[in-house]
Amino acid sequence: MKHRIAVIGGDGIGPEVTSEAVKVARAAGANLETQEFDLGAAHYERTGEVLDDATLTQLMGFDAILLGAIGPAIGSTAVPSGILERGLLLKLRFALDLYINQRPFLTLDPSVTTTHKPVDMIVIRENTEGAYVGEGGLLRKGTPFEVATQGSVNTRNGVERAIRYAFEIARSRERKLLTLVHKTNVLTFSGDLWYRTFVEVSSEYRDVTTSYNHVDAACIYLVEAPERYDVIVTDNLFGDILTDLAAAVSQGIGYAASANINPERTGPSLFEPVHGAAHDRVGTGEANPYAAIRSAAMMLDFLGETEVAKRIEDALGVLPPEGARTSEIGDFYGERVIR
Amino acid sequence: MKHRIAVIGGDGIGPEVTSEAVKVARAAGANLETQEFDLGAAHYERTGEVLDDATLTQLMGFDAILLGAIGPAIGSTAVPSGILERGLLLKLRFALDLYINQRPFLTLDPSVTTTHKPVDMIVIRENTEGAYVGEGGLLRKGTPFEVATQGSVNTRNGVERAIRYAFEIARSRERKLLTLVHKTNVLTFSGDLWYRTFVEVSSEYRDVTTSYNHVDAACIYLVEAPERYDVIVTDNLFGDILTDLAAAVSQGIGYAASANINPERTGPSLFEPVHGAAHDRVGTGEANPYAAIRSAAMMLDFLGETEVAKRIEDALGVLPPEGARTSEIGDFYGERVIR
Ligand SMILES: CC(C)[C@H](C(=O)O)[C@@H](O)C(=O)O
Ligand SMILES: CC(C)[C@H](C(=O)O)[C@@H](O)C(=O)O
Repeated sequence: MKHRIAVIGGDGIGPEVTSEAVKVARAAGANLETQEFDLGAAHYERTGEVLDDATLTQLMGFDAILLGAIGPAIGSTAVPSGILERGLLLKLRFALDLYINQRPFLTLDPSVTTTHKPVDMIVIRENTEGAYVGEGGLLRKGTPFEVATQGSVNTRNGVERAIRYAFEIARSRERKLLTLVHKTNVLTFSGDLWYRTFVEVSSEYRDVTTSYNHVDAACIYLVEAPERYDVIVTDNLFGDILTDLAAAVSQGIGYAASANINPERTGPSLFEPVHGAAHDRVGTGEANPYAAIRSAAMMLDFLGETEVAKRIEDALGVLPPEGARTSEIGDFYGERVIR
Repeated sequence: MKHRIAVIGGDGIGPEVTSEAVKVARAAGANLETQEFDLGAAHYERTGEVLDDATLTQLMGFDAILLGAIGPAIGSTAVPSGILERGLLLKLRFALDLYINQRPFLTLDPSVTTTHKPVDMIVIRENTEGAYVGEGGLLRKGTPFEVATQGSVNTRNGVERAIRYAFEIARSRERKLLTLVHKTNVLTFSGDLWYRTFVEVSSEYRDVTTSYNHVDAACIYLVEAPERYDVIVTDNLFGDILTDLAAAVSQGIGYAASANINPERTGPSLFEPVHGAAHDRVGTGEANPYAAIRSAAMMLDFLGETEVAKRIEDALGVLPPEGARTSEIGDFYGERVIR
């Protein structure tokens, strides 16, 4: 079946890694009709627009969106901080109701990871609520009496659909372990909703073993005993933190793929490597396309191309031969890649 | 000079490690008059009280408080989740306006740490505001339309005094680097207040080199390149997360000391190891008193006993001989210790 894919290469190494991902997807047998969208820092600097309504509407007509990376070069001041993240990435997550952010972490070679422990886990991050809703304000701004409020809002529906999705993923895996991560002892209101919903939904999934960790403890475990995790479900902000940490302890941020999806398929879902634009690697042949390729595999799987996706996943599960390795396997992936 | 110290041993290994810490402090030359307070899970189970007003008033009359650990044994259901944390530890932080939570991390032996990289840094965590204020609620609780709100509140004064303190600490150190950690690209209101205040205060500390990292990136750096950090200043919730992570990558949670202080000395400050009650180690001789001893050294330093404190710090900077090591050096410190 043919799939219409909007490709937002973005900035820096973004276009390089998405074009490799598309190449690999086609080589594996996917029938893709792609259309490139020029968005990101360079586009913003030229036009003063991040994502206009007409482009958003156009994007909504595709079967899926593949995103490379967005962000100006380090030191550039032409793009106000946060404007691309909120105006493009978060806007798409919200506008398309991509309420699941699914991020798999798999250690290919434990000898090169920071903690030398193999990781094989998936983080399901709620992707449309929590501290990302932008609720709050600055009272008496600029005075000595200034107060900043920043709200986190979660709905029963938003929490439940993320948890339910996570239980389904956990059920489909061999170990069938699902851990809720939150900070219920301090965030009593959102924590109560998350915990209560988790316990309620768990009664429908008796085959899944459940546990709970506070987010601070989860950070310790991710470093000292990452093998204890199979599937983690957590809120938007904790998910942001835990997935970068999980990337660091597994194979590095250059290997972190992600799927921002709406399981009900009310529109296109969005697939993107978690890394940044790494402007200093452009054209050097050093950019690692692994995360983009794995994101494309997740996209194909979600589009129903399970066999094609599996072919790619299988190939990705094998460490490339020495000569074909990009520079950063097991290394610090470079400041500019971390966005 | 004599100092009156309230000792809350607490639960599990708490009383063991505080009594070692007091012993060491005295051996190093401190003149301490101690009074034990029986608080914690066991006390709550017996009395139904966490911390009554009379006891709080009494505690306020001391020069400092030394706390061991609080928390019921794993699996015990006699203590509702979070009640001790909020009713004792957080209550003391708020009631005594202990707005600085200072946590030093020092690798004694890089060969036994998870990342095998030496760490020497201090995290200054704002300790009285942010998501810890308990603002929020559950609307339409228990219905399918339930909404949980959880607010984070920061004041200019609260942020500025923490940042100012952090600059002073950074200035006193050799490398003089201070990194603000936040998530300004998403938490636009609190992030704006933190960032703006940081930049403003920095103009008074031109000898300190400053930088900024998003909290997710900071997690990667803490794992892959912890040596980049000298002093970190951050908000209450990020500080909670980052300090457990910093403990995990440096020497383990059994080595993490902390000082909850009010620099203006409006009342007693509170010193405590970051680890938990580890009920399964009680009486085994395996509890590691390092963090409690280091917390006591921080207490003595704060009380003006700089020489005594230095004597202890110096001794702590030397790795104990093989036979004297507790079981968890460089090891996973055990689930029950992580609170
Ligand atoms: C770029 C930023 C807004 C984004 C987030 O915070 O979600 C990123 O860190 C991520 O994890 O996808
Ligand atoms: C016990 C808990 C309330 C506390 C916190 O969240 O501050 C602890 O994790 C800490 O870091 O001191």
